[in-house]
Order: sequence, then C-alpha cells, then structure tokens
Amino acid sequence: MSRVRVHNFSVSLDGFATGEGQSLDEPFGHAGGRLHEWFFTTRTFNAMQGKAGGGAGVDDAVSGTWDSGIGAEIMGRNKFGPQRGPWEDHAWTGWWGPNPPFHTPVFVLTHHPRPSVEMEGGTTFHFVDATPEEVLRQAREAAGGLDVRIGGGPSTVRQFLAAGLVDHMHIAVVPIILGRGERLWDGLEGLEKNFQIESVTTPSGVTHMTFTRR
Amino acid sequence: MSRVRVHNFSVSLDGFATGEGQSLDEPFGHAGGRLHEWFFTTRTFNAMQGKAGGGAGVDDAVSGTWDSGIGAEIMGRNKFGPQRGPWEDHAWTGWWGPNPPFHTPVFVLTHHPRPSVEMEGGTTFHFVDATPEEVLRQAREAAGGLDVRIGGGPSTVRQFLAAGLVDHMHIAVVPIILGRGERLWDGLEGLEKNFQIESVTTPSGVTHMTFTRR
Repeated sequence: MSRVRVHNFSVSLDGFATGEGQSLDEPFGHAGGRLHEWFFTTRTFNAMQGKAGGGAGVDDAVSGTWDSGIGAEIMGRNKFGPQRGPWEDHAWTGWWGPNPPFHTPVFVLTHHPRPSVEMEGGTTFHFVDATPEEVLRQAREAAGGLDVRIGGGPSTVRQFLAAGLVDHMHIAVVPIILGRGERLWDGLEGLEKNFQIESVTTPSGVTHMTFTRR
Repeated sequence: MSRVRVHNFSVSLDGFATGEGQSLDEPFGHAGGRLHEWFFTTRTFNAMQGKAGGGAGVDDAVSGTWDSGIGAEIMGRNKFGPQRGPWEDHAWTGWWGPNPPFHTPVFVLTHHPRPSVEMEGGTTFHFVDATPEEVLRQAREAAGGLDVRIGGGPSTVRQFLAAGLVDHMHIAVVPIILGRGERLWDGLEGLEKNFQIESVTTPSGVTHMTFTRR
C-alpha cells in the first residue's frame, strides 16, 4: 500500500509552521526564511534549484528523503500562492518558476477550481475542491502505486493528520519563537499515541522528528 | 552578579507547560505525569524525594544542575497549590509534604498574601504581591549572593522572560500534543535573539534546550 508522507516541514518552538502576512514577496509572511535556514544550506535544497554543492550532514540526509518513491503531491492553496478567493486570472502558476521541483502530478486543494496546468519537468498542477479522503484517492490513482506527499501548508497537514491519513511525517523544530502565524498542532491532542516518534538534534540547532504510524 | 535561572521546565510539542483542570489530585491537570516521565526516572528526581537510585544518563546530568548555587526560589501561586482567590485557611503548605525539596527561602507570588510558613529542611514560604522586578529584589537579598530560580508555573516563567530577567533557562520539550492548558511561549516573539540556544535529544525522547543570555 502506498504511504502518505510529510517531509521537511518546519515549525517554530511555539508551533507555527508559517508566519503572519503571506505576500508575493514573503511566502512565509513575517517568518521570512527563518524556518528554513537549516534547509537552505543542504545539497538537497540546492539540487531542488538545479544547483550543485551544499552540506551533506544529517540535515541533508533527513531532508533528502523527501522525494524518493513519491508519485504525487497534495498541497493547500496557500502553499501554491498568496491569492485568496476566486482566481482573477490564470497567469499564476506557483512560486517555483517554469520547472517546479515536484516532477509529478500536484493536487492543489482550493474551493475555486481552475484548469490543470502542465509545467516543464513533469509537474502538472490539478485544482480540486474535495475532502482529504477524496483528493487522496485521486492522488493515489495518479501516483501509480507510489507514495503521496502532503506538501503543506499547516492547515492542509493538520487536516490530513486529524483525519488519520498520514503514515510518515518529518518535522523540523526550529528554535525560534514566531509569536504569530498558522499553528500546526491545534486540534491534534493525543496525536503522539498513533505514532512512533524519534528525535535528533543537529549542529544547525534544529530538532528533526520523525513520526511513523504505529 | 547572581543569575536568574529556570530548570527542568517541561513543555509539550505544542507549547503547553501544564494541562487543563488543575486539582489536588492532578497538579498538572489533564497532563498528569506525562510532561515529566523523563524526569521521574532520574537519580536527581529520586534524590528530591529522599530516595536513592535512578538513571544517571544525560536526562539526569541536565536535570541535576537545578539546585547547585541556588539561594532562593520564586514561584507562582498555581505552582504552590490549586486554590484560587482569598485563602480560606492557612492549612495548605504546598504539594511537597513537611520537608520540601527547595531548602531555601521560596517567594510565592500571589495577590492574597498570608504569613510566612517555615518548613522542615530550610524551606520557608513567603507570600508576596509584587512585580517580577520587586520579588526578584527580595529573593536576591534572601539568596545572599547565590542564584535565584524561577520555579514556574508557565505564567510566572513567561512574565520573567517578558521582563528580560532570565539569565539561564533549561526547557525539556516532550513529544506529546497536550492540546490545552497553559502555554509557555505566548507573547514572547523573537525571544531567541536574546539567548544562545543549545539542544540535545536523549533516548527518553525528550529534547533538552538550554537558553543562555547573550
């Protein structure tokens, strides 16, 4: 059975996975790049940008597992873009340029569907207004037996966790106090009972946590 | 200059340092003992109960630093007891029996002062209605040049952090989602800028974090 996985999902010490005030210039609002500094230095991140080099330590080893065996991604609309409400036009095709790093079908959850967009490099964005269960059914079919990644943002990950649909999750706890934004853990009391949890800190200061469904 | 220190202060992954519903039977409310399981197994905890034995690993090494060089403690009223409002009588002398583990003057912050209580073993509870700065002045005087520990609960630690009065803090992040209770980090956006932070995970699953003021 294909697994449902979350990877490289950073949260602040106070539980925020994104800041307040998302905009075209600041996908993570007032958090800026602070939740992902540990990631920007890795070979894995560079490779996503088509670049070579970068750190090859534990931050890289853990983050590097994000892509292998993935056949589709599901993301929330706020990960796709800063727009809200009905689409004013269809010019926006995500933050990632002409060749996004996904290279699979990507299902964008939105109450305002629009035509699918085929990008370079194998990424196709599909826009669906559906429950977690229903979009997962579509993503699994598109993934052809491979795993499905839940790409974020926080409310999308939270919905899939609340529905008991996540098999594996990697969280990076970053030692900053964001103070405001969108919390990951709200409404998930007792979540730990469903998972085997491992933690490791790295010299970057981050604590990597893996949640494997029992 | 004597330092102001916080030790063995456990928070859940979602930032709660105590649960909901404190009572005589459950000082930490619905959290029960779950925030402190890592601590109960240590030699340090056993020694606080006048017992021998227990684990002598990193959990013990980190928690064992709580007492050395401390000349006074400051705690909030909710750490002292479950009562709220005016004291109905003065029979309650804390959760810790006749010989509490503090062995120093302890200043209990409360809007309802009462006479000091001298316990066995060197602990004397003083009840004061004061600002963090004022109670710290009193505690420093009583500590005779030694350090002052802020003992909790969350709102007391938060007040001292917000006032910039904490020099050293040890937090144990416990991989559970409490969901409700009292949060430690609220109102402390950007706190990390004032501290050098180190983290280490231990086999108990806890991440110990030390905050040392820059």
